[in-house]
Amino acid sequence: MGSLKLEELGARARAACTALGKLGHNEKSAALLGCAGKLRGMEDGILEANRKDLVDAQAKGMKESLIDRLTLNHARLEAMAQGLTDVAAMDEPVGEYVSMKTRPNGLVIGEKRVPIGVVGMIYESRPNVTADCFALCFKSGNAVILKGGSDALRSNKAIVDALRLGLREAGVNEDCLQLIEDTNRETATAFMKLNQYLDVLIPRGGAGLIRSVVENATVPTIETGTGNCHVYVDASADLHMALEIITNAKTQRIGVCNACESLVIHRSVLGAFLPLLAKRMEEYHVEVRADDEARALVPSWKAATEEDYGTEYLDWIVSLRTVGSCDEAIGHINRYNTKHSETIVTNDYANAQRFLDEIDAAAVYVNASTRFTDGFEFGFGAEIGISTQKLHARGPMGLKALTTTKFVVYGNGQVRG
Amino acid sequence: MGSLKLEELGARARAACTALGKLGHNEKSAALLGCAGKLRGMEDGILEANRKDLVDAQAKGMKESLIDRLTLNHARLEAMAQGLTDVAAMDEPVGEYVSMKTRPNGLVIGEKRVPIGVVGMIYESRPNVTADCFALCFKSGNAVILKGGSDALRSNKAIVDALRLGLREAGVNEDCLQLIEDTNRETATAFMKLNQYLDVLIPRGGAGLIRSVVENATVPTIETGTGNCHVYVDASADLHMALEIITNAKTQRIGVCNACESLVIHRSVLGAFLPLLAKRMEEYHVEVRADDEARALVPSWKAATEEDYGTEYLDWIVSLRTVGSCDEAIGHINRYNTKHSETIVTNDYANAQRFLDEIDAAAVYVNASTRFTDGFEFGFGAEIGISTQKLHARGPMGLKALTTTKFVVYGNGQVRG
Repeated sequence: MGSLKLEELGARARAACTALGKLGHNEKSAALLGCAGKLRGMEDGILEANRKDLVDAQAKGMKESLIDRLTLNHARLEAMAQGLTDVAAMDEPVGEYVSMKTRPNGLVIGEKRVPIGVVGMIYESRPNVTADCFALCFKSGNAVILKGGSDALRSNKAIVDALRLGLREAGVNEDCLQLIEDTNRETATAFMKLNQYLDVLIPRGGAGLIRSVVENATVPTIETGTGNCHVYVDASADLHMALEIITNAKTQRIGVCNACESLVIHRSVLGAFLPLLAKRMEEYHVEVRADDEARALVPSWKAATEEDYGTEYLDWIVSLRTVGSCDEAIGHINRYNTKHSETIVTNDYANAQRFLDEIDAAAVYVNASTRFTDGFEFGFGAEIGISTQKLHARGPMGLKALTTTKFVVYGNGQVRG
Repeated sequence: MGSLKLEELGARARAACTALGKLGHNEKSAALLGCAGKLRGMEDGILEANRKDLVDAQAKGMKESLIDRLTLNHARLEAMAQGLTDVAAMDEPVGEYVSMKTRPNGLVIGEKRVPIGVVGMIYESRPNVTADCFALCFKSGNAVILKGGSDALRSNKAIVDALRLGLREAGVNEDCLQLIEDTNRETATAFMKLNQYLDVLIPRGGAGLIRSVVENATVPTIETGTGNCHVYVDASADLHMALEIITNAKTQRIGVCNACESLVIHRSVLGAFLPLLAKRMEEYHVEVRADDEARALVPSWKAATEEDYGTEYLDWIVSLRTVGSCDEAIGHINRYNTKHSETIVTNDYANAQRFLDEIDAAAVYVNASTRFTDGFEFGFGAEIGISTQKLHARGPMGLKALTTTKFVVYGNGQVRG
């Protein structure tokens, strides 16, 4: 039954997608602005639905960082609506010719940016993802089928109802936005194998969800963002800058994939830096799990295990490791990281360049917080996710990541010799 | 045992890959030229190995089109060596900044082209694929693990031995090129799940191989090229041009993915065109399987079944369907094609544009043979395959398709507000 329903959603999305491909920039922008208006106009209903989701989540004992991700309020809903407006104002991603050239035999070969088709999204309890993903998919000419988490079902339904109403009133086939309301695992698995109707599947959520998609999906997938992100404090670091960057990366928003989960500190600054760090982490109630060398200076810190270095806490905890060189820091990070975002704090030119070259991650920083790995911060507008794989898109994915290309070839009778 | 050996190959490729990333353009070019020299210098041994493969293949009754794909000779080996030389001369794909910009907060964000890492290839009996894939992977800074078909094992070993010798003599770690010699199915399946060591898996071969990879792989995959390619002869077509394009697309090389497998003919030209077509197909011994409307004019043709329209013959057979409009042709092609290469022969401007816009395929042509969908013909040099999926790369994949990007961010203490 679940799977029959999926086929139906898939067929509707595929059909809507063909019509969507023929809409021009202005029609799509008008529809997005209409959808933003509906989010604003239907705020009471959406927040009410979200309150019900939150009551259930609290009753189930959901942890603070996840409650934060689930929570909507006026400001977040306004940001969501503004996101639609911003996407509407962006340049049209479809129809651009990436290249166009005449070959020696006279064939004129163009590489044209076109929509992917039907995008599937599986995500967990962040209802703002619902509006962001719709806006980017719609703007890039794709239909989208969403499967949100059961914890956010009421919120997502309320948001999707508002958006579909906006589409309908703009004269657009609202089937280009579909929400799977069935939250069982069997439906999720069937969705991952819906090759006939899905051109790509993008999971957004915790490590368990990502792993399940990688193992089960037969639809081409873009693996996104678990983030075991590091800040490395090099021997020549400005220690006050390092302290501010660590504080921001760790505490500015605790439950997100670009938050810092692990610190790597050069041995030569341990004595000067750890007292400052210990005081700051205590102020923010961040538990530090460190190696013996660091604990010799701050005995109140817990001992870090091997598992700690591989953990994305999404919580008020950070691991810490002492190293003797930039190379050792790079080795440690490349071993434990999830290829998301990594920072070096340094004033050494050669170490900065080596860190940028040798760290294997979607985004590598010198002297800045890992928290900037984000579609808005990178100037792409809302993002559909942060890719931690190497195919198709890497790092924050905006409109371009939702397109593909097609070779368009003009001939006058050429045959191959 | 097979899987232990795989792990070892994987670990060696991964290790070689790190060193490879530090080689400059000139060192890589010199190594490729050395490898080309070894292919030429070791021709006798390679052709002897190939002859043994061919004897076995003929004894097993392999069909003509596959024998053609397996066969090496002086000219094909020379083309292979020339391919390495051509790739050596191409621009360096690694290190290019796709974009670089300063954000309002002063962060300088660059998007830099970098190697993917370790590429896995599974392919069938074309030994030239061995050298082509190595050259493109090496040039783009990737290690590669090859798994060729059992029919070509001796040929592939001889080619890989020559190439590894060329690498060694150039002072490069030859472990950046690995051949899996174990040809059993279990090893193939383990290879598809070697996520720890493989960053991408590219299958090249028949529909069965591609399906097996799509269903079993957990490594990110680029689906390549089964080609059920069509030539549509529109009402306004120059019929002599149509005849030459069909002849070329169908018969110039029978066993390749961009060969034409199906003809779609506008009703209004049936009377004028079919006698020409029947005569030409008879000359080339091509069997035509047609619908009733066409068979009313050429009764010697067999009746096409539903299955025929979905079949990539790779043989001296072509299916034929009559339509009443360009829209009907587009509908037929989008229903049965494998998203590879499609051609319209027409002199009607609006139909040409509609065909280019609405056909869903990697390459869409007006008035040219489908046989041009090829890395050399598109100006990319040798190709690693022809992608028929929409993620990462679509159509012929050259050097760029073997790279990914990494965001490199220069800050001076920025934290997120």
